[in-house]
Amino acid sequence: MTPSAVRPSASGPADLIITGCTALVHDDQEEIGFVEDASIVVRDGVIETVTGEACAVDAVERIDGRGQVAMPGLINCHTHSPMVALRGIAEDLPVEEWFNDFIWPIESNLTERDVELGARLACAEMIRGGVTCFADHYFSMDTVAAVAIESGLRAHLGEAFFSSQGVEGREKSLAFALRHHGAADGRITTALAPHAPYTVDAADLAATAELAREHGLSVHLHAAENREQTDNSLARYGRTPIEILRNAGLLDNEAGLLIAHGTGIIDRDLPVLAGAGGPVAVATAPRGYLKFAWDPTPVRALREIGIPVGLATDGAASNNSLDVWESMALTSLVQKSAEGDPRTLTSRQALHHATLQSARAVGLGERIGSLAPGRRADIVLVDLTGPHTQPVHDLAATLVHCARSGDVRTTIVDGRVLMRDRALLTLDLPSTVRELGERLPALVDRTHGKRIQEYDT
Amino acid sequence: MTPSAVRPSASGPADLIITGCTALVHDDQEEIGFVEDASIVVRDGVIETVTGEACAVDAVERIDGRGQVAMPGLINCHTHSPMVALRGIAEDLPVEEWFNDFIWPIESNLTERDVELGARLACAEMIRGGVTCFADHYFSMDTVAAVAIESGLRAHLGEAFFSSQGVEGREKSLAFALRHHGAADGRITTALAPHAPYTVDAADLAATAELAREHGLSVHLHAAENREQTDNSLARYGRTPIEILRNAGLLDNEAGLLIAHGTGIIDRDLPVLAGAGGPVAVATAPRGYLKFAWDPTPVRALREIGIPVGLATDGAASNNSLDVWESMALTSLVQKSAEGDPRTLTSRQALHHATLQSARAVGLGERIGSLAPGRRADIVLVDLTGPHTQPVHDLAATLVHCARSGDVRTTIVDGRVLMRDRALLTLDLPSTVRELGERLPALVDRTHGKRIQEYDT
Repeated sequence: MTPSAVRPSASGPADLIITGCTALVHDDQEEIGFVEDASIVVRDGVIETVTGEACAVDAVERIDGRGQVAMPGLINCHTHSPMVALRGIAEDLPVEEWFNDFIWPIESNLTERDVELGARLACAEMIRGGVTCFADHYFSMDTVAAVAIESGLRAHLGEAFFSSQGVEGREKSLAFALRHHGAADGRITTALAPHAPYTVDAADLAATAELAREHGLSVHLHAAENREQTDNSLARYGRTPIEILRNAGLLDNEAGLLIAHGTGIIDRDLPVLAGAGGPVAVATAPRGYLKFAWDPTPVRALREIGIPVGLATDGAASNNSLDVWESMALTSLVQKSAEGDPRTLTSRQALHHATLQSARAVGLGERIGSLAPGRRADIVLVDLTGPHTQPVHDLAATLVHCARSGDVRTTIVDGRVLMRDRALLTLDLPSTVRELGERLPALVDRTHGKRIQEYDT
Repeated sequence: MTPSAVRPSASGPADLIITGCTALVHDDQEEIGFVEDASIVVRDGVIETVTGEACAVDAVERIDGRGQVAMPGLINCHTHSPMVALRGIAEDLPVEEWFNDFIWPIESNLTERDVELGARLACAEMIRGGVTCFADHYFSMDTVAAVAIESGLRAHLGEAFFSSQGVEGREKSLAFALRHHGAADGRITTALAPHAPYTVDAADLAATAELAREHGLSVHLHAAENREQTDNSLARYGRTPIEILRNAGLLDNEAGLLIAHGTGIIDRDLPVLAGAGGPVAVATAPRGYLKFAWDPTPVRALREIGIPVGLATDGAASNNSLDVWESMALTSLVQKSAEGDPRTLTSRQALHHATLQSARAVGLGERIGSLAPGRRADIVLVDLTGPHTQPVHDLAATLVHCARSGDVRTTIVDGRVLMRDRALLTLDLPSTVRELGERLPALVDRTHGKRIQEYDT
């Protein structure tokens, strides 16, 4: 993949220069390397240069990056950001009880204001954890889009729907996608967002594929979330969830298909995915899989057939956090364990998942995911001066296995600083937490006996 | 277990009072609960009171704990602290290559100064991560003891030995244990520290058990580290490593036996452990097991036979970090996954492992591990105001699954503040990192072709 051409250097001072950092870069084989004592120049939201040479550029804003690593901002490839409001509400349960007894009853209470406050808290958490882009799949997404724009984050958004909503669900998802695609100078992109093959029927999935084709939109959904779903799908329809997506035409969508989880992807799905006519990617959120006692996403098998696997957190009601840094470490650790092979999923591979593969997963493989001229300036600075990150024998391992999300000191999107020295610059956290706290009793009330949907795969 | 009796309140001001915090406490069934708006009074290094009532106590030092949870300091039940110097030196390798090609050749270069600097860096990392006590198993332990005393941490220390050292190894381990036991007003306790049944022969283990009995010392060793060791032991000797420990008399040691790892403990070992005549505990360090693709420690089976399982990190050369907070979260997550049961190892159970079970594992079950009158004042304050720990529906889940080691703001041992608002008060981190960095080239040189030992189980 070639980054966009370097823009001709404008006259006048640059907007931002970061000096003295160690910059994580990719070579033309996409191998990860590090440029020592690097300067990164940003102009008009775009990276102009990354160099280890002396760099006497005048700039409006300067950041001293000494003792820090500059790397592409993390990308949360699948979450439900407003669900941070439900963090810890339903612990230590199998997924069917989690959905049917807690989440879907509670979600029948959701108001626009709950969604707004939850999304704002989630954006605060992600900015503090070094996330610069998130793919969100939820309800009231006009509200989420407004909060994402306010926060300064990049976002890839889809309005979720079930077939139980009738054709209106799909139409609402389409209207949302068309209304916001390319908003905020391109920071907002959109997808059609059917919930999953077990809640959206075959005809509705096929109609979604047709709408996606017609409007050039990508599709983001849950599929093969766990092995039980795949087994039940085979028993009911004689087809796996992945085969259902193929039959609906979703694997051939030119603008791409993002599949959340895929821990139930089995061997017979691999040739189906390998034969996809459009770009298909999988988002993996390993913390929640451990917690629900699901298998891990088959990352090695997917890599072997060229399917990008992006990092994700899912919603905080199951995952407890939106910590993509932890997802990066756990992806490495869990894959070694699951494959019985300590040599697999090295730190450099984990960083490749965190950068270019995650960018491709959200359809932004040409715009973000590496620190290279022409890419959008989505950059985080990671402090390595703490005792837990010293000494450094292998910088990739230090980043993946020693550093933590809390070591991110500065978060930048499109060249705009959203967090500096751990201080949030775009969002008011205390007032958000306070008002959300006041609303929680009404939100979590389950005495009404309703639920928005039934979990029955 | 009954905490020591409450000391009669001395006259004059207390040494320390923490006010306005939420205090994690255990009831008489050892169930975990929380006292809101609590005050904790400390005198002479001991907790005098923990109360949710108004508390008009005069104190020399006051800490405002609002927005924070006070909990017993974490206990790292098995580490090799100086090995932080080798963090990241040997990545993505099976354990035999890790030992034979990297660690044991490099350790033949170790100097007292390397050990000192490594231990100091490790203590800094642990204090910053909310650890108040660590069980160390390494070489040059006089030096480690001096650093532990300087740092203010509590430590349970053993001088490691192999049978390849002859009887001198065992004698050196004994002399160390006798020299330091009870040092620093009881902050230092000691153990005999044979390396493992695959490096210390049966006669040497039996002699160790005899010395332990004679001197009233506990024993700390590696055993059944992974399944392959158990299988090899069965093939070679017809006995599992646990059975070898029993035959040596180590399971009947009155002062206790601490077994590191135990991921190779199999069903036939359970009645052997259940029949132990002395207190036996296991230390689990789950990050490294994932990384080496080992099975997890069988925590549920051990709980069912009453064996405490303490939390640990192992050395940073394999584990990459000394983050016991992460060990707590991973123990919960990995056990759910391994048992195929999302209901097992709840957050409250994880906190029980982190507190009372870890205290028992290091032989300090009567002195630390809970915030109760009469216990030593080993306390950490955890800040829950960050976006990633809000809102709080279930405080135990917030602590285990949302909070991170970096959220610890204050670390106190024996009533002495070792870190306040993230600032280390007892150790000079920059000079330690600088000098260690200068020594690394000589330390990691492997051109000499020597190694201190051979890994061949």
